[in-house]
Amino acid sequence: MSIALIILAAGKGTRMGSDLPKVLHRIAHAPMLWHAMRAGQALAPERTVVVTGHEADMVGASARDFDPETRVVLQTEQKGTAHAVAQAAPALDGFTGDAIVLYGDTPFISQDKLEEMARARSRHDVVVLGFNAADPGRYGRLVTEGDALLRIVEYKDATEDERSIALCNSGVVAADATLLMDLIAEVGNSNAAGEYYLPDIVAIARARGLSAGVVPCDESETLGVNSRAELAQAEAAFQRCARLRLMEDGVALQAPETVWLAWDTVIGRDAEIEPNVVFGPCVTIESGARIRAFSHLEGCHVSRGAIVGPFARLRPGAELAEHSRVGNFVEIKNAHLGAGAKANHLTYIGDADIGERTNIGAGTVTCNYDGFFKHRTTIGKDAFIGSDTMLVAPVTVGDGAMTGSGSVVTKNVAPGDLAIGRARQENKPGMARALRDMLRAKKQKQTKG
Amino acid sequence: MSIALIILAAGKGTRMGSDLPKVLHRIAHAPMLWHAMRAGQALAPERTVVVTGHEADMVGASARDFDPETRVVLQTEQKGTAHAVAQAAPALDGFTGDAIVLYGDTPFISQDKLEEMARARSRHDVVVLGFNAADPGRYGRLVTEGDALLRIVEYKDATEDERSIALCNSGVVAADATLLMDLIAEVGNSNAAGEYYLPDIVAIARARGLSAGVVPCDESETLGVNSRAELAQAEAAFQRCARLRLMEDGVALQAPETVWLAWDTVIGRDAEIEPNVVFGPCVTIESGARIRAFSHLEGCHVSRGAIVGPFARLRPGAELAEHSRVGNFVEIKNAHLGAGAKANHLTYIGDADIGERTNIGAGTVTCNYDGFFKHRTTIGKDAFIGSDTMLVAPVTVGDGAMTGSGSVVTKNVAPGDLAIGRARQENKPGMARALRDMLRAKKQKQTKG
Amino acid sequence: MSIALIILAAGKGTRMGSDLPKVLHRIAHAPMLWHAMRAGQALAPERTVVVTGHEADMVGASARDFDPETRVVLQTEQKGTAHAVAQAAPALDGFTGDAIVLYGDTPFISQDKLEEMARARSRHDVVVLGFNAADPGRYGRLVTEGDALLRIVEYKDATEDERSIALCNSGVVAADATLLMDLIAEVGNSNAAGEYYLPDIVAIARARGLSAGVVPCDESETLGVNSRAELAQAEAAFQRCARLRLMEDGVALQAPETVWLAWDTVIGRDAEIEPNVVFGPCVTIESGARIRAFSHLEGCHVSRGAIVGPFARLRPGAELAEHSRVGNFVEIKNAHLGAGAKANHLTYIGDADIGERTNIGAGTVTCNYDGFFKHRTTIGKDAFIGSDTMLVAPVTVGDGAMTGSGSVVTKNVAPGDLAIGRARQENKPGMARALRDMLRAKKQKQTKG
Repeated sequence: MSIALIILAAGKGTRMGSDLPKVLHRIAHAPMLWHAMRAGQALAPERTVVVTGHEADMVGASARDFDPETRVVLQTEQKGTAHAVAQAAPALDGFTGDAIVLYGDTPFISQDKLEEMARARSRHDVVVLGFNAADPGRYGRLVTEGDALLRIVEYKDATEDERSIALCNSGVVAADATLLMDLIAEVGNSNAAGEYYLPDIVAIARARGLSAGVVPCDESETLGVNSRAELAQAEAAFQRCARLRLMEDGVALQAPETVWLAWDTVIGRDAEIEPNVVFGPCVTIESGARIRAFSHLEGCHVSRGAIVGPFARLRPGAELAEHSRVGNFVEIKNAHLGAGAKANHLTYIGDADIGERTNIGAGTVTCNYDGFFKHRTTIGKDAFIGSDTMLVAPVTVGDGAMTGSGSVVTKNVAPGDLAIGRARQENKPGMARALRDMLRAKKQKQTKG
Repeated sequence: MSIALIILAAGKGTRMGSDLPKVLHRIAHAPMLWHAMRAGQALAPERTVVVTGHEADMVGASARDFDPETRVVLQTEQKGTAHAVAQAAPALDGFTGDAIVLYGDTPFISQDKLEEMARARSRHDVVVLGFNAADPGRYGRLVTEGDALLRIVEYKDATEDERSIALCNSGVVAADATLLMDLIAEVGNSNAAGEYYLPDIVAIARARGLSAGVVPCDESETLGVNSRAELAQAEAAFQRCARLRLMEDGVALQAPETVWLAWDTVIGRDAEIEPNVVFGPCVTIESGARIRAFSHLEGCHVSRGAIVGPFARLRPGAELAEHSRVGNFVEIKNAHLGAGAKANHLTYIGDADIGERTNIGAGTVTCNYDGFFKHRTTIGKDAFIGSDTMLVAPVTVGDGAMTGSGSVVTKNVAPGDLAIGRARQENKPGMARALRDMLRAKKQKQTKG
Repeated sequence: MSIALIILAAGKGTRMGSDLPKVLHRIAHAPMLWHAMRAGQALAPERTVVVTGHEADMVGASARDFDPETRVVLQTEQKGTAHAVAQAAPALDGFTGDAIVLYGDTPFISQDKLEEMARARSRHDVVVLGFNAADPGRYGRLVTEGDALLRIVEYKDATEDERSIALCNSGVVAADATLLMDLIAEVGNSNAAGEYYLPDIVAIARARGLSAGVVPCDESETLGVNSRAELAQAEAAFQRCARLRLMEDGVALQAPETVWLAWDTVIGRDAEIEPNVVFGPCVTIESGARIRAFSHLEGCHVSRGAIVGPFARLRPGAELAEHSRVGNFVEIKNAHLGAGAKANHLTYIGDADIGERTNIGAGTVTCNYDGFFKHRTTIGKDAFIGSDTMLVAPVTVGDGAMTGSGSVVTKNVAPGDLAIGRARQENKPGMARALRDMLRAKKQKQTKG
């Protein structure tokens, strides 16, 4: 069965107190919209339609960042969820198969549940995702018989018996795409808000003699985000799950509650993550690597046996080969460290290739930027870069070469050569004493004065 | 109505296990005493009297740091709360109006509740703040009739019925100042501890035919601190509230539970605070600024569009103009960064002015200290400071000037000039290889030996 | 009474998803096995026997790291706990006294409870440690009469009445060593798993007319670890207790939940630990020292009045004397800082002795490694090391000496002398402007091209 996703992402999210549209607020470094789109991808959809409204260009661009094939449509007026879904009709032109309606601000629906909904379509014309609410409050209740959905009752219209039902309407719906649009065409707006509500299609379908079904899920999956406090709760929920999953996969987390993962972080078995590590997007850590406390990683790859931190920063393009070592107060950007290479202290390595077993001394800097262009530094294997070496790129240091500490290296160094560029040390007898006496006298004069 | 605050701050706090007097232990970087004083300021008090005892000088000085007008009195012996309040009498000389008694170790009473107490004084001669206890335990119970307070019953004297009352005595009291001292004069000390208890004034007032009233509040407001564990709980409670308030104001906190705010932190809408950020006192972050993970800020101002961190430290006097950028392992102290200026890596900027759009290379240091004096560094706009430049202050680098990487700059550099001070690089053919061979041989010899 | 500990540590711990044997997974930087061994040491055992199996060499080596006198025995096949204990028999040869059986994956049994078990042995031949379970689930139940243990009932064999018992079997057992081995010899394996179970000795003892007793404990003490998620919970439980104990001892923890202690961390009264501090093993902090946020300490000693951080890293062998100061982005390894000495910014001090009151400028590095050997740097008192000084070890700087900023110091500096080694600054008029014009033109050309 072909599947089309329709993802509603038109809302402003006034309660977020933000200029950013709600669905672009991020959880684990991905816009909420991407989480919803990712869940939907489990169904291998033939089409994905995102319905935009508030800041439509920005939302559309983000959707296409996630999946360039996304069709973006515009809901110019906010007239309810059924009206929003109706806007997707032109984008479904020529499509036959099932449509599933998701929400850009409901990021946690699992792939399993969406697959279950797709399967339930073989038994029912319309399938609704219900959630079991601990406190159902004013949610619409689902009146069911087995897995059949008899009707959706708004709280205000519900009897006492109906109000005691815990299974509530999530708004997520699956139906044949043509039927869905057909049913929506019949939805009216004679309600207080004057809006067209998607859940009304259930009653319309039932009146036509069609069958509706329900797939129940845990409340945590349908958690919606309407304020920054709820966003923070959603972030926390995501992190709890992601940390637990890593531990189940054999990753060592001493203090899981202090490790912040991105939506796409990949970590291998028996890798060790110490407390207070922050992962940005696009990080892969291989088995047996160790990420020490207070490290910050984005867009990088750390190989087996490598040790990072404490206090290390890996930026996009950092590639650490096996058993390499990045120590404290070291920043690596767009650079490859060969197997066994070390940069242990107070160093900036940017736009560089460092060979195997090469040792980078404390205080080394690759001077990669001249104010206009970025240039590359290349260092061979088994080289020894002395402390406080400035490598003025573009520059190449050969295999087994050395640089004297405090040198500014502007010319290439051939393999096995030693580059040195520093003034000779001169000791001026008694001059420190004299200087100190002078300064002390001046200070005393000032203090008295 | 004129208001006088009487704040009791004489206790030692033995259970804190500390040489510091209890009320000076800090919550969110302010002494508990200041939190109580700040709440009281909502009433625009004509006078504030702080009653000191243990380490009186230190406590008095701290009170005057908060408000130089504070009158500090000394309770030489610890003879109970009524006795403590009596010490305030001389400091209220000539004052007419209401007195409100607060406690230096009860930091969270809200301004709203104090205003409510002040208003309740129009209906009652004495007003007591009560709190609804989840577990009333051995607190004194408030027997009420509507908003009238009939009596305060000590737990040990209470009937079963009275013990079932959840409304308990916080000790916070408001009354006409003259009346208050008058009532206190009648309080006796015929109890086990031989102390004079402030709550006894309610019975004395009622016996005189005066009326007493109660203002109820949430238990969280009257949370008192007696041990370091309770102090940590109070800190956590403060942080929870402060983070929530920021989120309601539209600040983006990815992981609010990892952001540590000071009592006076100000952050604008749509500013973004990443995980693991610590704010010391006196920090202002403008709208749309971004504070990245693992940053530490004290006494600084970050303008709109600026980006700080990760791993940045802003110390007192750091002023970051719009769209400036302070990166990893960078410390800024008493320095102004112009709009669009950047110091991205491994840098110390102290006592300096950096012009607009100027770029500071990695490893740069303003050498501001000669062991006796601090000196200032001034850099113009559009300058380019090469990596590892030592700027030996006092020194000035003009607009659009450059410094070569590895230079020690001791003389001023005129606008548009290039300053360079480094030895020429020399490559010694094969010398690295020879040196390594020699060291390796030595090592092998040692290992065998 | 002489005591022998028998600690079972043979299991693989499949659910850990790890190549490391379960008992070597760490809590607060010590293998779980060490926690169990440490608890047992309260009894001043004459012998400690560790029964190994999976990765026996590694486990045995770790046990001997903790206590070199440990006798390590091997259980070649995993045939149940009674079988495991039986393997200890040869290692108890010649020993007379009591044996207590502990578990390497049950790290939190308190010294108090073990002492209580030892005392209970005066009343009973066999003593079992029971725990009061909130949810007893499928644990074996202890049927008791006073402190006498009548029998242990497996859940599957228990009556409804027996299932309502909350006191469960922890597996920890004490008995005369000879008797214990004697009882174990009678244990059979006619059960589903075909294993020999240690608790069966209770029934065997009772059948012989011997008496069994029970010592009850809190469930938290018998917490066992079977998965990484449980390990993380055990770590969290340890940290909660350890933080609380520090606060009771008068240590100031602003945000205790962000401070990560090692199993052996020692901190004095009125020391102050800011948020986000990580302690590795072997750290001692004296009274009144202050550890600022984002600091990482291992194997070091910080004296009274010293201030460390924020963003400081102290590595093994760092010794900070009174009132010394280690600031941001500073790493200290195997080095002694004299009283009042300061290294405040961006510095690496390794293998060094720094005298009293000496000031180390920003960007200073002790170049202690030549690729083969480590060398030592010695600096006297009252010295002033200019910013960005490279100290090429072995090298000595005398009392009161100075180094000019940017100098590479390869030769010793006598007391009172000034060492300087840097090229003279040259200003090239207009050259920055010319260079920038050239680069800008090149960039524009590229952009157009």
